[in-house]
Amino acid sequence: MSSLAADLQSILGPKGWLSGDDAAPFSRDWLNRYGEVPLGVARPATTTEVSQVVAACHAAGVPVTPQGGNTSLCGGAVSGTAGGVILSLARMNRIGDVDRAAGTIEVEAGTILASLHSHVEAQDLIFPLHLGAEGSAQIGGLIGTNAGGSHALRYGMMQDLVMGMEVVLADGTVWDGLRAVQKDNAGYQLRRLFCGAEGTLGIVTRAVLKLYPAPKQKATALLALPDIETLVSYGTYLRSEAGEFISGLEFFCDLGLDLALRHVEGMEFPLESRSPFYLLVELTTSSALVPLDEILEGALTVGMENGQVSDGALAMSEAQRAAFWRLREEQPEGQRLEGAQLKHDISVPPGKLAAFLTEGEGVCQLILPGVRINPFGHLGDGNVHYNLSPAVGSSDFADKAQAFAEGLGSLASRLQGSFAAEHGLGRSKIALADALRPANERELMGRIKTAMDPRGIMNPGVVLKG
Amino acid sequence: MSSLAADLQSILGPKGWLSGDDAAPFSRDWLNRYGEVPLGVARPATTTEVSQVVAACHAAGVPVTPQGGNTSLCGGAVSGTAGGVILSLARMNRIGDVDRAAGTIEVEAGTILASLHSHVEAQDLIFPLHLGAEGSAQIGGLIGTNAGGSHALRYGMMQDLVMGMEVVLADGTVWDGLRAVQKDNAGYQLRRLFCGAEGTLGIVTRAVLKLYPAPKQKATALLALPDIETLVSYGTYLRSEAGEFISGLEFFCDLGLDLALRHVEGMEFPLESRSPFYLLVELTTSSALVPLDEILEGALTVGMENGQVSDGALAMSEAQRAAFWRLREEQPEGQRLEGAQLKHDISVPPGKLAAFLTEGEGVCQLILPGVRINPFGHLGDGNVHYNLSPAVGSSDFADKAQAFAEGLGSLASRLQGSFAAEHGLGRSKIALADALRPANERELMGRIKTAMDPRGIMNPGVVLKG
Repeated sequence: MSSLAADLQSILGPKGWLSGDDAAPFSRDWLNRYGEVPLGVARPATTTEVSQVVAACHAAGVPVTPQGGNTSLCGGAVSGTAGGVILSLARMNRIGDVDRAAGTIEVEAGTILASLHSHVEAQDLIFPLHLGAEGSAQIGGLIGTNAGGSHALRYGMMQDLVMGMEVVLADGTVWDGLRAVQKDNAGYQLRRLFCGAEGTLGIVTRAVLKLYPAPKQKATALLALPDIETLVSYGTYLRSEAGEFISGLEFFCDLGLDLALRHVEGMEFPLESRSPFYLLVELTTSSALVPLDEILEGALTVGMENGQVSDGALAMSEAQRAAFWRLREEQPEGQRLEGAQLKHDISVPPGKLAAFLTEGEGVCQLILPGVRINPFGHLGDGNVHYNLSPAVGSSDFADKAQAFAEGLGSLASRLQGSFAAEHGLGRSKIALADALRPANERELMGRIKTAMDPRGIMNPGVVLKG
Repeated sequence: MSSLAADLQSILGPKGWLSGDDAAPFSRDWLNRYGEVPLGVARPATTTEVSQVVAACHAAGVPVTPQGGNTSLCGGAVSGTAGGVILSLARMNRIGDVDRAAGTIEVEAGTILASLHSHVEAQDLIFPLHLGAEGSAQIGGLIGTNAGGSHALRYGMMQDLVMGMEVVLADGTVWDGLRAVQKDNAGYQLRRLFCGAEGTLGIVTRAVLKLYPAPKQKATALLALPDIETLVSYGTYLRSEAGEFISGLEFFCDLGLDLALRHVEGMEFPLESRSPFYLLVELTTSSALVPLDEILEGALTVGMENGQVSDGALAMSEAQRAAFWRLREEQPEGQRLEGAQLKHDISVPPGKLAAFLTEGEGVCQLILPGVRINPFGHLGDGNVHYNLSPAVGSSDFADKAQAFAEGLGSLASRLQGSFAAEHGLGRSKIALADALRPANERELMGRIKTAMDPRGIMNPGVVLKG
């Protein structure tokens, strides 16, 4: 046993240090693309233990990769170096008391998102971040990747929902940034910097999160629309009429609907006729006095009278609401079951979505004629999951993955968007970032990294080249 | 003329370079406490000129202090070194086109906040940041200080309203971070780091800002409440009943009301009897269908029936709404006209406001018996402007300013709050920050500063010791 492994075992005890076969379930990423064999997996139970582990790794010059639910789509939570240490936060999952007057709660980094949801919902509050992986994803990982999801239009991303945090720095010292206030301008916005740094600047161990009152009403509709321009302009209209109520504004297209209906069990399509695009609208309010259904119906009527909306249905029950959402949420699963796929996580200003889809189609067909494009995502913030399936009759992408990523990413950048909207860079998108980001931006990031982690032990090879 | 001055004059032309007496109006801060005689004032008209000025200063090793409306309450926008260069962004005040589908607008850093307000309001949109200095404060300075104000509870602070930015870095190169999307996780959150850095890491020259639909309805009430505990619990109740509508939740106390009524012209008090505390509630909605008055009246009725609210009035006209707001907004002016004062810009979690006011009173009376305390501010986010007047019959604070600042600041920190909530650190609060912030936080900030501004020319002596 290496001397570091012995030290870590003695710090953490038998429950806190896994190696050999026991470490294997933590070693590879969710898509099984990344992950060298680690020295072992540290499973600290307290901030002090995290601090001791990082200090020992720092002294030994051994890389540390923090791991939450290991749901990264970009390989961000596994070791890029054989013999690195994976630091799993899973045992640190205590949820503190709700501070009702402040609308906040303090949680440990290993808290699973869905556990937090049920914990606060039982107290008539919500933590409004929702995404596909919520049953596994942990708060620390969500902070590390600055997660977004389907409610970000209204409530913001993870960085907007974190008020304060505790972070173990590269040398193992603990930064106490557990302030519980929105207004804190006493220095640089370090809490925002740690959000989205994917564990490369420090390891978040606890956080104070923002809560909202639970909605007293919800209204949900599924609409059919003829084209992307209409989709965007109708979305703009909805925002002007029902701005503060919109908690979901999700779109998908007929190819994606087809894939979901064909491959996923128990799906139902509630409208009378198919259409090129669909929009899922969800309004919520914390007031019992708002005529929420009437507001949504009114907007729907206007859309139909204007010829923007060709068909639409309002959810009449919780079951129907869930069925509408499944049509959107099973898009990735339908496409996965179709066979090979390429995922792109793009954002562009919503007004440029039409340009992005039109020009993106051109980019893709030039790279690989016949490729099938399934764009779906969050209309409100212009976040498109632009996923590809091979041409009918073909089973792969002929090694064009990087060409697609660069072509689409550079189009998004040109339209003032981002080639990495809500999944982060991890390990998989570093080459893309090197190709697309301004050189002085990468230089600045590198300087910050070196300043905060001079020995380069914090998740090296993630966000920036190792 | 120094060789740098000659270079700057040749870069900027006669309209762009002020020195001697012409520079004097820019040299001192708004409270006339800070500001050494500068080499001159650079007034660039373009990003390229800003870039050239900073590059020249970088080469010469001369400090550059960016200046917007020069409304800093902490001395952040004037030179701390004789012979430094003040870089005024005032000539860069172009406002771009609204992107209605995205709900964004691109503006230059010298745009005055009130000009932006009227520009977008004419198009049925709002930029929701409001504060006392809005007639002078410029976007660049608001970003630099991560401004807050009275609507932050609903819309966030400046960092939440900036989607992308262009920044001239310490060596004069330009970082193009003008993305126009919320979801951008392609690397460290640099845009958030520049927010609140007070020009010490770079100079913001342009920004893409977030807009919201203009409200179609407003409802405003002024309430009287017996004590701080009731104020806080009633605020919590309002949030649970009317969460998404609350755009203002401002409190003040009877001493502050008295000062405003006595000293400021044309003030009127609309309630029948005086009370220890007052709460100004403003609800707005972008929907014409919401019974907004009814929601506010309902909450008011509940408060009165429960004995939480002792008196209340609903604004029946725009004039009355404005009159209610003046009672809150003239608090600083009333106190200024009373004579000497000390300002503290504190935030604590709202549930700890009562503890803060009670213990704060103890702290203050121990330091200087009889001192008069006027707490007012933003209930929703726990931001208290905790301002002091000397005891009746006394005219100063007997050199106790630092003792008050440290006593109150350390109390706020102990309650998980901040001793510098929305005014920043500037020059005036560095000693306080050194006394109150964890040592490793200052160390981290120092490292980031050195990494991004190795020659130390960007507004030295602000945020961090020079």
